[in-house]
Amino acid sequence: MSVLSSELVLSQRSLWAEGQPISDLMSRALTNPDLISLAAGFVDPTSLPVEVTRDVLHDLLASDSEARRILQYGTTAGDPLLREYLLEELVERDLDGQRGDLSAEQVVLTAGSNQLLHLICETLLNPGDIVLCASPTYFVFTGMLTNIGARSIGVAVDDDGIIPESLEEHFEHLRRVGELDRIAAIYVVPYFDNPRGVTMSLERRARVVEIANRWSSRRKIHVISDDAYRELRYAGEDIPSMKAVDETGDTVIVTGTFSKSYAPGVRVGWGVLPRGLVEPICNQKGNVDFGSPHLNQHLMRRVLEMGVYRAHIEQVRASYRRKLEAMLAAADEFLSPLAGVDWRRPNGGLYVWAELPESIDTGPAGRLFDVAIQRGMFYVPGQYAFPAEGEPVRRNTMRLSFGVQTPDNIREGIRLLAEAIRDVM
Amino acid sequence: MSVLSSELVLSQRSLWAEGQPISDLMSRALTNPDLISLAAGFVDPTSLPVEVTRDVLHDLLASDSEARRILQYGTTAGDPLLREYLLEELVERDLDGQRGDLSAEQVVLTAGSNQLLHLICETLLNPGDIVLCASPTYFVFTGMLTNIGARSIGVAVDDDGIIPESLEEHFEHLRRVGELDRIAAIYVVPYFDNPRGVTMSLERRARVVEIANRWSSRRKIHVISDDAYRELRYAGEDIPSMKAVDETGDTVIVTGTFSKSYAPGVRVGWGVLPRGLVEPICNQKGNVDFGSPHLNQHLMRRVLEMGVYRAHIEQVRASYRRKLEAMLAAADEFLSPLAGVDWRRPNGGLYVWAELPESIDTGPAGRLFDVAIQRGMFYVPGQYAFPAEGEPVRRNTMRLSFGVQTPDNIREGIRLLAEAIRDVM
Repeated sequence: MSVLSSELVLSQRSLWAEGQPISDLMSRALTNPDLISLAAGFVDPTSLPVEVTRDVLHDLLASDSEARRILQYGTTAGDPLLREYLLEELVERDLDGQRGDLSAEQVVLTAGSNQLLHLICETLLNPGDIVLCASPTYFVFTGMLTNIGARSIGVAVDDDGIIPESLEEHFEHLRRVGELDRIAAIYVVPYFDNPRGVTMSLERRARVVEIANRWSSRRKIHVISDDAYRELRYAGEDIPSMKAVDETGDTVIVTGTFSKSYAPGVRVGWGVLPRGLVEPICNQKGNVDFGSPHLNQHLMRRVLEMGVYRAHIEQVRASYRRKLEAMLAAADEFLSPLAGVDWRRPNGGLYVWAELPESIDTGPAGRLFDVAIQRGMFYVPGQYAFPAEGEPVRRNTMRLSFGVQTPDNIREGIRLLAEAIRDVM
Repeated sequence: MSVLSSELVLSQRSLWAEGQPISDLMSRALTNPDLISLAAGFVDPTSLPVEVTRDVLHDLLASDSEARRILQYGTTAGDPLLREYLLEELVERDLDGQRGDLSAEQVVLTAGSNQLLHLICETLLNPGDIVLCASPTYFVFTGMLTNIGARSIGVAVDDDGIIPESLEEHFEHLRRVGELDRIAAIYVVPYFDNPRGVTMSLERRARVVEIANRWSSRRKIHVISDDAYRELRYAGEDIPSMKAVDETGDTVIVTGTFSKSYAPGVRVGWGVLPRGLVEPICNQKGNVDFGSPHLNQHLMRRVLEMGVYRAHIEQVRASYRRKLEAMLAAADEFLSPLAGVDWRRPNGGLYVWAELPESIDTGPAGRLFDVAIQRGMFYVPGQYAFPAEGEPVRRNTMRLSFGVQTPDNIREGIRLLAEAIRDVM
């Protein structure tokens, strides 16, 4: 026995989590602070609720007894009043005011909705289990699946999100190869999805839920609906969440967050869970942190109570709308002359999804990423957003974020991107 | 295929987490709000930093640009300045001001130190792996091990914490049965431990680290030092942390928290990690929440910068000191007449550990818990704090918390407890 020969042994999970290639790529870009980043999904700094937060915190801490309560531990599921408000809002918007047997006990508060997505995966998935996702989809979610040893399988998409026929085919195929019982969930981002900016129609939402129910054979298949971008709509009318088409009430898990619509520095997310998942998910959360910060939950509760949330969202929308318009105008100006370059025009969210000629690899194996950095901008290569299995990875794609930069910088970033594309064409 | 026949399948983890018996017991007690709880490890509400938090948040959000920065996402490891301050303090207190090759990059900020303990376990342990703990120890930690399928083995303790000879015996035994390579860590609470209130001497700390290093054969064995109660000292001098005796610099993981010394509602914890664990632990955290709330980190940073933290700790100590004295005086008055009832006199922390005659089972299988509730008080049965394996469970023990109740209520709670004990004797 010798100290020198002992080895740092990491868990299987740690090995699964190792070396997320996008981090390396991004850190390459971040060494130069003068670059225009159209990569990170950060939010617009100028429309962050500075005054609102000041006022609400002042108000919240004005009473000694209230302040003491807020500075104490809360419960694992979170502040009951905030949970009740969140449920009321969902019932109002999605269920025509009919609460049915939904209760605020089915609402849990977490550190951003990301922690809830993680807890859901911990609760539903064993290593080797499968989640069907759009191809492409939110890469942090598929990275999380990899981290716990689960599999993501990509389903084909159109302008309306996941294509039901493709979803059926994947189910059919997995049944044939004896893996139907490994499928635990379908994951969707139905509002202005990350990375494509596509919103699912209510009809499409209903079909996905119907398919999940129909294929629930021995094992219940859930639909995890990540509604992170719901409030970031810049055109058109809101669509009811998938909870509206969850007729049995135990198929859909809706997750939401104040990170995009209010402030990520507060990190309050939530979810509405089928009744049977409340206790298992709270058990997992109890083992991690016995509840997210009480202070932050009460801050958001008071923001809702004081009626300043909706007004703030309108400000946020106005700011992002200008930025989206700046990006689309710049794309029209600089990218449209380039043959084979195309992009989507989303009604909300934080991203524009672009497709380049098949011959251009936007990732580390191609020239474009480095050339773009030399020109002075960078983006997220689309390939990172494709699940490991299922529909093929499309390496000629990219995600362009318009959240952080000013309209002028967005225009300049797209101009530089056009130059870089021309360089490698 | 039928919707009706499908079954909610939970992960192996969920099954492992199920049915923590202490929750059931506590919820039985909590149905009556008039009971005097000497159970929960909550903190003293009267000494929570209401004015300090008001002032610091006001100051923190006064500048628009600063406020915007705070409301944005931070990094996964947390605010660099707060990490630097925490490291400086550790270097000052534990390393005679000699930083050596320690850097602030080795400090990570988490949602309380509990989240960090969880991330450490995720990073170091596979199902079936072993952590050696004091018997008894912090039951939330052993519950977390159970949740991820790992094993806790209890080591015998004395007035100075884990007994080195018992630790050696357990290593020896595990080597003999071929399980040495399953041992990943020794977990200790060296300051006023939960549940016994015992503090390890510096010499004992050094011996535990030496034993961990000596038994690190093929696999590196870490010492996880949970310093949650360090600031809650009411008598005697502070002792350097285990980092002071970590000569190789890669054996000890120190975790700390502002939950006890400042406010649990803020939920900021931290750790100082061996260099090789920084990236794996941040990878795990990145998969969960990409960093704890920025707002809360900056609140604590500013609390340290404004020099109000130490003054606040003195207030906290004064308040708890009175409560501890109330509990010990009540024990002298009401418990000392009872034959075979004994208790420890801690110098800090939140708990008094009591031992009853062998014949009295303090848990759900005995009569005392229900009789105490009928009398009007409740406590934590000590048996929940004993690891699943190793030293035998002692069912005639209890943990009495003095954190939440007033001195008068503490006295009354102990009086009622004495009555209950007399009832069952």
